[in-house]
Amino acid sequence: MKLRFLDTTLRDGAQTPGISFSTEDKLMLLRLLDRFGVDYLEAGAPATNPKDRFLFEKLKQERFSAKICAFATTVRPGQSAESDPALQLVLDTSSPAVTVVGKASAPQVAEVLQTAPEENLRMVADTVRFFSQRGREVIFDAEHFFDGYRENPDYAVRVLRTAQDAGAQVLCLCDTNGGTLPEQLAQIVNSVAALVDPKTLGVHCHNDFGLADACTLAAVGAGVGFLQVTQLGLGERCGNADFETLLPVLCEKYGAECACRAQLSSLTRLSREVSEICNLKPDERHPFVGRFAYTHKAGTHVDGIRKSAGSFEALDPALVGNRRSTVISELSGKSALLEKLHELAPDLEKDSPLVGAILDKIKSLEYEGYYYENADASLYLLISDALDRRRRFYEIQDIKLVLSDANRPESTCSAMVKVRANGKTEYAASEGNGPVDAMDRALRGALERFFPCVRDLHLTDYKVRVLNSEAATGAEVRVLMRSSFAKEHFGTVGVSTDITRASFVALCDAIDYVLTRFSASEEAR
Amino acid sequence: MKLRFLDTTLRDGAQTPGISFSTEDKLMLLRLLDRFGVDYLEAGAPATNPKDRFLFEKLKQERFSAKICAFATTVRPGQSAESDPALQLVLDTSSPAVTVVGKASAPQVAEVLQTAPEENLRMVADTVRFFSQRGREVIFDAEHFFDGYRENPDYAVRVLRTAQDAGAQVLCLCDTNGGTLPEQLAQIVNSVAALVDPKTLGVHCHNDFGLADACTLAAVGAGVGFLQVTQLGLGERCGNADFETLLPVLCEKYGAECACRAQLSSLTRLSREVSEICNLKPDERHPFVGRFAYTHKAGTHVDGIRKSAGSFEALDPALVGNRRSTVISELSGKSALLEKLHELAPDLEKDSPLVGAILDKIKSLEYEGYYYENADASLYLLISDALDRRRRFYEIQDIKLVLSDANRPESTCSAMVKVRANGKTEYAASEGNGPVDAMDRALRGALERFFPCVRDLHLTDYKVRVLNSEAATGAEVRVLMRSSFAKEHFGTVGVSTDITRASFVALCDAIDYVLTRFSASEEAR
Repeated sequence: MKLRFLDTTLRDGAQTPGISFSTEDKLMLLRLLDRFGVDYLEAGAPATNPKDRFLFEKLKQERFSAKICAFATTVRPGQSAESDPALQLVLDTSSPAVTVVGKASAPQVAEVLQTAPEENLRMVADTVRFFSQRGREVIFDAEHFFDGYRENPDYAVRVLRTAQDAGAQVLCLCDTNGGTLPEQLAQIVNSVAALVDPKTLGVHCHNDFGLADACTLAAVGAGVGFLQVTQLGLGERCGNADFETLLPVLCEKYGAECACRAQLSSLTRLSREVSEICNLKPDERHPFVGRFAYTHKAGTHVDGIRKSAGSFEALDPALVGNRRSTVISELSGKSALLEKLHELAPDLEKDSPLVGAILDKIKSLEYEGYYYENADASLYLLISDALDRRRRFYEIQDIKLVLSDANRPESTCSAMVKVRANGKTEYAASEGNGPVDAMDRALRGALERFFPCVRDLHLTDYKVRVLNSEAATGAEVRVLMRSSFAKEHFGTVGVSTDITRASFVALCDAIDYVLTRFSASEEAR
Repeated sequence: MKLRFLDTTLRDGAQTPGISFSTEDKLMLLRLLDRFGVDYLEAGAPATNPKDRFLFEKLKQERFSAKICAFATTVRPGQSAESDPALQLVLDTSSPAVTVVGKASAPQVAEVLQTAPEENLRMVADTVRFFSQRGREVIFDAEHFFDGYRENPDYAVRVLRTAQDAGAQVLCLCDTNGGTLPEQLAQIVNSVAALVDPKTLGVHCHNDFGLADACTLAAVGAGVGFLQVTQLGLGERCGNADFETLLPVLCEKYGAECACRAQLSSLTRLSREVSEICNLKPDERHPFVGRFAYTHKAGTHVDGIRKSAGSFEALDPALVGNRRSTVISELSGKSALLEKLHELAPDLEKDSPLVGAILDKIKSLEYEGYYYENADASLYLLISDALDRRRRFYEIQDIKLVLSDANRPESTCSAMVKVRANGKTEYAASEGNGPVDAMDRALRGALERFFPCVRDLHLTDYKVRVLNSEAATGAEVRVLMRSSFAKEHFGTVGVSTDITRASFVALCDAIDYVLTRFSASEEAR
């Protein structure tokens, strides 16, 4: 069965309370989903949101395999598409596809649009035609379709036909308020498929009854091949149909043929990256990709799993790139750690007491809030330390920071640093955007005089997570930095109640990693 | 349709990683669910857990309308129920009902129990009879039933019949690994109902495919009337069928008759109390009971809801004791803002140019990275400003921060503040955990001398979001603070490239909000 996905995380997903995407976030997400093989990417609503217009301008410089969609609403009652400035803004995006949303419920047309049923049909036709005649692929979102069908099936189907006659290539049936049950949905889809070419049908389901995924599967069972989803089920109220839940079920139980199928084993990684971009704490109990999705706690289950994996795992975790774990040995990635260890010490035996000691050290640091999954360079240094192979290149003897006029927008922050290396002492100072930036500049200013290579170290990403936010401004924070050096990208981590101190730890790890790696390659020559 | 619920939060739910109930927690939960009308309460597994034995002792002194269940496993191969000390421990609880779990899958019997199919039947019969002959109501949990039925339907049904013949009053079909699809489940239930009295059937579903609730509903659709659930879907891996999601759908869409129906309008309160007992952060997007389940963000939705509630609400929030709310964001239009404006200025007209001006101001601030959804107090101040109703209580003339020894774990940070109010100048200084904490302490130290009420302002939550993280340490950050004052909870926001400055803005908004609100109520006296 052939399936296509339209991801609307950046449009419908952006309506999740608490979510707010920057343009950078949006670009990252689009690139990520494009690489994953998602067929259509709804990037935003340029007519109503100036930030989305800016995004679409940026997108003109990028290439995607996916079709980028812009979202548009039908013209208002009495208006013509030709003279509607909002539709012109959508056209200006040059996106190859346009999602046009129009009402498919007779009572909604009367109560909310406050216009006649025939006028709504004209609005749908006029808007769809405006885009289809200009070569855009039009996906028609039939809003309130299922409620509308129950209230007035003839009218709901007329709306679909009108959109199709005007050139819409996909007719997407929306369960806008999320109140349709899977079996009702399947029945209605079956009725509609008898009247409208079923190959053109899509669905868009909401999770108000906790059934968005079940409804989407019911639609697929009834022959629908175009699915609107969001990452992790994000969306207004209780969210939308959830890509990470649906993809494995569709691939493994429905024999779905889709571009994303080849990426299934990266699904867990995708979900973690999406959570990072959204600054969401990942849902540990999320089907397939959650940290606990394959975590077994009950003793009998742990035993059952050892004898027969299927006992408590309906799908192999490797299929979705997740891992089995048991709560007793909670530490993640023992084998990953062994791999890292072997880079540094190929001769180290698996059962060596040193391996156990390093594992214990990591466990206790993770308990403090450290997190090495995205901090490979910090982990490298920690292991070097444990193996007694870490070289100290410099000593920071003092850092002072002064912030003046913190009450004013033109506040300044400066840092002074005293560093000792190769028997010499150097001082440096710098201003910066806030304490962390000032410290970064001053520190590298001083170190460059000893180690010119530090000049080529670039910080590329900086993330802050408050670990126990209930402690308010005295809370512990974790800083994750990404850096690049000579085409290598790596991550470092620092934890403290003081964000400056946590940043300092991550910053020094980045510098130390570069010096360790650089001096190692120097010596090898 | 008559339905009965068995809640297994304290047994299967207790296997959620990260959950650990004290005896006091368990008692509270049992009393809560009993008052709510849940029919059966599975309190624990006394045979394997000494803490559960202690709980059952305590329960002997309490009276419940619900039937308390103790959980037991069938005797081991070759053993007799009469001489099994584990079953004796279950009997000793005096619980009126006993859940007996036994295997209903032929391959599981061979691989995991490592015994013959006939021996497993004997174990089931012996164990069930042990309890039923002693007057206990036995609920037989047919473990791995759906997988077992697919592999060997005759054997799976023989297991059920064996349990029934031995006196089990409920035959609960378990989808133990959560891998059955709703339509498959309904088909199997229909086949089984032709062979075994359907009135005795129950289901127990897991959420590994995100379909535990859909499967439970499919079972009800096929005539099953006994449902095993947990509160908030707690449970191992991805959890179990979710009482809070199922109850409203069953009552409103399936016409369920059950004891809990009368309590439906307390469901939201129940879920919050359960979260408290479990020490879980409530899931804001949880169907029906989540804080965001009825929160509308998109402007067109807020408008639609005002004209016709059903547009975006499939079920009235009052039915489940929740309420509708709107959030302000760049996606929201005039309608949502008007609701907030009316709190401050009930006389303001919708078409007033002031409304448009405030909306523009919010949009441009959101473009800069501000975000008012969770910052109601900052929004209040912004609107007061626009209406020319904001009073300035104090002036901060200077803030200086000094961080020493940032390179050492024992680094210190101190802040100095100069504040002017009521014609007087005050200085204050403080140390703190990092610059933000130091500034918070110093600022409030100075202001308390003018406004003692500031002492009762408490920061309860602090979140940092890096907006354009690629700019690394020079990136822009948004700080969101939650504060409490006299039982009111509110949020404030600040944005800057300097985290200190962003925190300062959010901190001052919190103080200003308290002074504005406090002085307003003072003057009203």
